[in-house]
Amino acid sequence: MPTESEIISRIRKRAAAPRDARVPIGDDAAVMEFAGADDLIACCDLMVEGVHFQTHWATPRLIGRKALAVTLSDVAAMGGSPRFAMISLALPAAKSSEFVNELFDGIFEMADAAGVFIIGGDTSSSPDSLFIDTIALGRCAKGRAITRAGALPGDRIFVTGSLGASRLGLMLLGQGFRLEDDSQNDKEAGRARRLALLKHLAPAPRLEFGRTIGEAGLANSMIDISDGLSTDLSHILEESRSGAIIHAAALPIDDSVIALAPDELKTDPLDLALHGGEEYELLFTAPPENRDRIIELSAATGLPVTEIGEIIIGEGLRIERNGALEPVKPRGYEHLI
Amino acid sequence: MPTESEIISRIRKRAAAPRDARVPIGDDAAVMEFAGADDLIACCDLMVEGVHFQTHWATPRLIGRKALAVTLSDVAAMGGSPRFAMISLALPAAKSSEFVNELFDGIFEMADAAGVFIIGGDTSSSPDSLFIDTIALGRCAKGRAITRAGALPGDRIFVTGSLGASRLGLMLLGQGFRLEDDSQNDKEAGRARRLALLKHLAPAPRLEFGRTIGEAGLANSMIDISDGLSTDLSHILEESRSGAIIHAAALPIDDSVIALAPDELKTDPLDLALHGGEEYELLFTAPPENRDRIIELSAATGLPVTEIGEIIIGEGLRIERNGALEPVKPRGYEHLI
Repeated sequence: MPTESEIISRIRKRAAAPRDARVPIGDDAAVMEFAGADDLIACCDLMVEGVHFQTHWATPRLIGRKALAVTLSDVAAMGGSPRFAMISLALPAAKSSEFVNELFDGIFEMADAAGVFIIGGDTSSSPDSLFIDTIALGRCAKGRAITRAGALPGDRIFVTGSLGASRLGLMLLGQGFRLEDDSQNDKEAGRARRLALLKHLAPAPRLEFGRTIGEAGLANSMIDISDGLSTDLSHILEESRSGAIIHAAALPIDDSVIALAPDELKTDPLDLALHGGEEYELLFTAPPENRDRIIELSAATGLPVTEIGEIIIGEGLRIERNGALEPVKPRGYEHLI
Repeated sequence: MPTESEIISRIRKRAAAPRDARVPIGDDAAVMEFAGADDLIACCDLMVEGVHFQTHWATPRLIGRKALAVTLSDVAAMGGSPRFAMISLALPAAKSSEFVNELFDGIFEMADAAGVFIIGGDTSSSPDSLFIDTIALGRCAKGRAITRAGALPGDRIFVTGSLGASRLGLMLLGQGFRLEDDSQNDKEAGRARRLALLKHLAPAPRLEFGRTIGEAGLANSMIDISDGLSTDLSHILEESRSGAIIHAAALPIDDSVIALAPDELKTDPLDLALHGGEEYELLFTAPPENRDRIIELSAATGLPVTEIGEIIIGEGLRIERNGALEPVKPRGYEHLI
């Protein structure tokens, strides 16, 4: 394990200072100019080895990339734009300098792609597991953050991208499949496996879509899917004191899930789409008259958006399947099953 | 161990929303109004069980209190005022609900005392040790943050409070002394031990002094002593490209160190004062013409401030002892020796 000062010195070299950083990384704290017209968004997300990930599942680069990606996703889910990040890292003694370098390669890769500057952090040794806490700071126009509490009866429910592949990827990891494993006899299944593994190990937070829909003021409520559609939609319903109906046939189930779940994994694709966590897709509600502009936004950002249901007066989540309504119990995402 | 949702629900109940929180704790991220006249200060500090503390050393309340205190101290060291905090917690399964409650009692106690609002965080289980990452957000007037880089030759060097007691407290903990242990035969030594243990386990960040000296613009550089005077002063010297001379006779060595170090611990009090970490005193430099106003500030805040040396052209740190100058090698604070 490299020493703390070695790690800090390397990170400082790589952490380019943005123009609005008055005091960049390396002091007791970072200091940023802040435009008075904006609100400040702050959040953090903790990833623990053995709970959220295993180091033998993926390269350190992908672990670092995902650690930051999931936190930036929370800023996008507020309709904001991430701008700064801090990284707190507790490193087991057995981790090599190379591991740490690659971990930060991934963190900086994600930061650069998002236009985010690393402005601080802390490092420590760890008696056992690797801990990565990432902190994101961002902005949105004054009073324009999109919360979980704004859904209104009559709103339509939309989701970006497709569903179920991240959980499928996690199941494949548990079965021993790895990204670097290209000895697939069945090319079709191999390709599906690879997409599911990528969705789990290298999620792409919907930063542009989140920021743009926030700026356009098109959504009444929004959340990112980290615990699964059923759980995260239930968060919106609880905070908005409303109910919802979603349509099974409308759910954008990922192709890899349809290809692999029933046969290889004896799992219902709908189950993965409803309850699979770590999707980092955006789930939002909007009045029906915004539908056209949402479709335009989808086209402009190149990100599919699907209407999956509607907000109703009442409480609880129900799913319509072949004309019948049944209640959906939110099933929180279970780690490492 | 309580479930994540139990922990979050308890914290949400206790986390009063400040007026400038547009979106309080409980959404994907917190959103705060931000006064355009201020700069934003951000930092984080990670405390790991077995590295920075042991749970049998002190109550969970004191562990929680200190975890937040050390991060707020970093904001004070910028001459700023902390305003918001986030807490990321990884909890071993063996920790009881009572432990978690008391830990948060300590965190909220420190937050309330500092006028800081808890606006977010994350919780996870931990395979082994307890991890607490605390994140602080604060403000200072535009462009007025006090960095490590501003010391000028001719500046005098000042330190708040007294030195050496925190390291002494750590040594006493290693010898089995505890705060709750009141079976001291020797009342004088017992009192000294108690003060040293308190300095280590319940440090008081110099928030009022840091904010006030920042507002008054009296210091050219500042840092809080977390790694020890020799190491932290060396940080100022490196960043300011200057040297310094400090005077052994001027160092405000804590009474408990003078009482206990030589006989009970066979340790040179000067050594503890020079190299002992986790003091959370403020170390700063200022032009000599500011001395009177600094003394006034010390009186107004009730916090002793001592002049201990001066910044010179050149590099490196030297100490004057009985008329002779000798170099001081920074000795980084070693955890858990």
